[in-house]
Amino acid sequence: MPNTPDTMDADLLARFAAITGSAHALTDGASVAPYLVESRGLYHGTTPLVLRPGSVAEVSAILKLASETGAAIVPQGGNTGHVAGQIPREGRADVVLSLSRLNRIRDVDPVGNVIVADAGCVLADIQKAAEDVDRLFPLSLGSEGSCQIGGNLSSNAGGTAVLAYGNTRQLCLGLEVVLPTGEIWDGLRRLKKDNTGYDLRDLFIGAEGTLGVITGAVLKLVPRPAGHEVAFAGLRSVEAALALFDKAQQRCGGALTGFELMPRIGIAFTTRHIPGVRDPLSSRHDWYALIDVSTSDSAETARTMVETLLAEAMEADLVQDAVIAASEDQRRAIWHMRESMSPAQKPEGGSIKHDVSVPVSSIPAFMAEADEAVMAMIPGARICSFGHMGDGNIHYNISQPIGADKQAFLDRWREVNAVVHGIVLKYGGSISAEHGIGQLKRDELAAVRAPIEIELMARIKHAFDPAGIMNPDKVLRAER
Amino acid sequence: MPNTPDTMDADLLARFAAITGSAHALTDGASVAPYLVESRGLYHGTTPLVLRPGSVAEVSAILKLASETGAAIVPQGGNTGHVAGQIPREGRADVVLSLSRLNRIRDVDPVGNVIVADAGCVLADIQKAAEDVDRLFPLSLGSEGSCQIGGNLSSNAGGTAVLAYGNTRQLCLGLEVVLPTGEIWDGLRRLKKDNTGYDLRDLFIGAEGTLGVITGAVLKLVPRPAGHEVAFAGLRSVEAALALFDKAQQRCGGALTGFELMPRIGIAFTTRHIPGVRDPLSSRHDWYALIDVSTSDSAETARTMVETLLAEAMEADLVQDAVIAASEDQRRAIWHMRESMSPAQKPEGGSIKHDVSVPVSSIPAFMAEADEAVMAMIPGARICSFGHMGDGNIHYNISQPIGADKQAFLDRWREVNAVVHGIVLKYGGSISAEHGIGQLKRDELAAVRAPIEIELMARIKHAFDPAGIMNPDKVLRAER
Repeated sequence: MPNTPDTMDADLLARFAAITGSAHALTDGASVAPYLVESRGLYHGTTPLVLRPGSVAEVSAILKLASETGAAIVPQGGNTGHVAGQIPREGRADVVLSLSRLNRIRDVDPVGNVIVADAGCVLADIQKAAEDVDRLFPLSLGSEGSCQIGGNLSSNAGGTAVLAYGNTRQLCLGLEVVLPTGEIWDGLRRLKKDNTGYDLRDLFIGAEGTLGVITGAVLKLVPRPAGHEVAFAGLRSVEAALALFDKAQQRCGGALTGFELMPRIGIAFTTRHIPGVRDPLSSRHDWYALIDVSTSDSAETARTMVETLLAEAMEADLVQDAVIAASEDQRRAIWHMRESMSPAQKPEGGSIKHDVSVPVSSIPAFMAEADEAVMAMIPGARICSFGHMGDGNIHYNISQPIGADKQAFLDRWREVNAVVHGIVLKYGGSISAEHGIGQLKRDELAAVRAPIEIELMARIKHAFDPAGIMNPDKVLRAER
Repeated sequence: MPNTPDTMDADLLARFAAITGSAHALTDGASVAPYLVESRGLYHGTTPLVLRPGSVAEVSAILKLASETGAAIVPQGGNTGHVAGQIPREGRADVVLSLSRLNRIRDVDPVGNVIVADAGCVLADIQKAAEDVDRLFPLSLGSEGSCQIGGNLSSNAGGTAVLAYGNTRQLCLGLEVVLPTGEIWDGLRRLKKDNTGYDLRDLFIGAEGTLGVITGAVLKLVPRPAGHEVAFAGLRSVEAALALFDKAQQRCGGALTGFELMPRIGIAFTTRHIPGVRDPLSSRHDWYALIDVSTSDSAETARTMVETLLAEAMEADLVQDAVIAASEDQRRAIWHMRESMSPAQKPEGGSIKHDVSVPVSSIPAFMAEADEAVMAMIPGARICSFGHMGDGNIHYNISQPIGADKQAFLDRWREVNAVVHGIVLKYGGSISAEHGIGQLKRDELAAVRAPIEIELMARIKHAFDPAGIMNPDKVLRAER
């Protein structure tokens, strides 16, 4: 992993380091190494300097200096992103700006149902702060123990409760953003309704740090549910899963918090490789659904809802077998199985991954068509497609054939992507449902979207960051 | 009301008219008159030409010609806006582009829970189309019989069900927009999750037609509630209303669809002036709350929720008296009373109006402070402040003192605005919660917001509309 401290002028480096103090300006290989790789190991970046500012004023000073000198800045949160948006470019002198030290919860207001947090707060800490005042911050995802809210906002993270509460976008009322010039936009509003001009907030959300650096946010809290039930159902087909989802929506409405789809092979992988995971059903099924219901009024409502739903679904032959978790431990265990789907693929060799969405009603047709195409390309491929069915979001992952050469399989990543994404687009879908664009999908986005759309994005980028210093080459190809 | 056909070159006028056909290119005073005034009569515009295109292609041709010739275009839907965003400027040659003929519902998909509609569809027609397939399109507002979805989107309309379903922004999945150049952005996606670059959709939503013309939209449908209850409660104070709202949120969660606050004087005005409106409570109270609950699972759940809530609230002395509507007619009657608050002020003389929001928990303090300031300025003023308490959105309206001179009272509009908005800002509030900026609040917005925020908006405007032809002088002051 090359580190290239010599690509930055020593004087400039010293000026940057003077802003944070040298203790928070990392330059040696061992210290900067963790900032240069992402979880999948697809990208390795280089940097002369990792800055760890301790205040918004320091972030502002860093960006001001960067604007003046043309130094590229790559904001990084918990470094859990899957598209290398947070990783500096290889062979360039991008400065990494870590938000980790901006980790203060600024205010918790249970009456107003908001929490105000620094961008570097770890998601789990925000969840905890909400719980402490008997509220729920509903954003929840596999990496919640290390991802940071600034990254969640910049990537508009999804996760497991989108069905009821929306993406991160829907959970944010206001933002504080340091602009590329170092100017600070104070949009930390706590308002549910505010129609006063262009929606700057939603422009920064999901922009992956290419328009400015999010340093703080006002987040929505909701009442903690009185009732919470998790059911796990064995199903015959994806079509049955769709019918079950439709019924669950009718029956539970806004109380339906999650509806996750899992294939048999995913259950096999998790029970095989993840310690403590076991299949809660005694019989085997081709497909499985995790149904999560939470109700505000009482625990009984949730229980009755789930029992009635499953009884009706069995009566209608949509469900072959099912269990309702009997304790919080059991609920966690079922969710843990679902969240282990992706890690459980690792011991099975290489996997080619897709984070796609299609209209919910098109999921069965999309999956049938994609499966056929993939199996024709790679006989023996083991398709492990799972995900947030209620959102139309499938992690269409493919494990290598047993005994195949891992690298040879992974070398076909782009080729397989092209085929799967082609089918996704045919169904009016998205090539990135929740992970974003970053470096991984940048050129593909430009290829699949209408030129006018890419052109509008480029104009926005130029309007906000004329010097091109903010996370260049992410989302859009840099002009220079 | 002056009409100025001679301010546009006859040849250019003929070229515009050729696009729609002369039957849909209105120039005579009587035909164009309805397009030049808005409901409150505060603004009167002028125009040489009202164009009524019959297709997206015609909208595109109109904007292309406008871009080439520099003619200003003012998109107009149902002309129900309250800030004159849809009204052409006075004394200029702005062309009005009416979307009324683009009124086709393109697709209804109950399985995918979406409806795709032309921008000119009347809101009530969309509600009806949803109902026809046993779904709910939850956007609902007083003017739903004549407002158009394109206008709702362009102004990010709020209405009476924001608490549970969000503003128009939250009800839209995709957009089709004709850009100032005439190019068409096809963003008609039906996806719940799509993290692929900058959020263009949310930039056009709420932009009041200054960045392009919305011509079509993909809208979200939800299951029709199985249970629906409306309660009307007499309260002692705004503080009691806040405590009741807090309890209602805890008790009902996502089933709480509306929580509206009304003052005694509003009940007096509606019962006095609006035919058929009567006070459902026998005793008089200083304040009233309308509580709307809808549940997906069963009618019983909604009934039990409301009954339990009111019983607990009476036990806690938060509610003095209450009724639960016993029929759909009674539910409509209570809502009709609430929606008549604003029209019922008309017969009482002039009214100075505010559409503001503050954090929900600050409503009592804001209202107390604003009341004191207003009464000090205008002794005898009759404050009729009502609205969507659950959203923090108060229509802080002031009827003139009895016997006062109407015009002299109305002449103080800006002066009173400045005082009330000053208090709103002190509480971190918004000077336009749901009505937008248009012409009415343009200069005030620029005065109260940080210069960098206005500057960012101006850069976006310039990036999308360099020729400055799209609804100039609305939201932002035009450059030329």
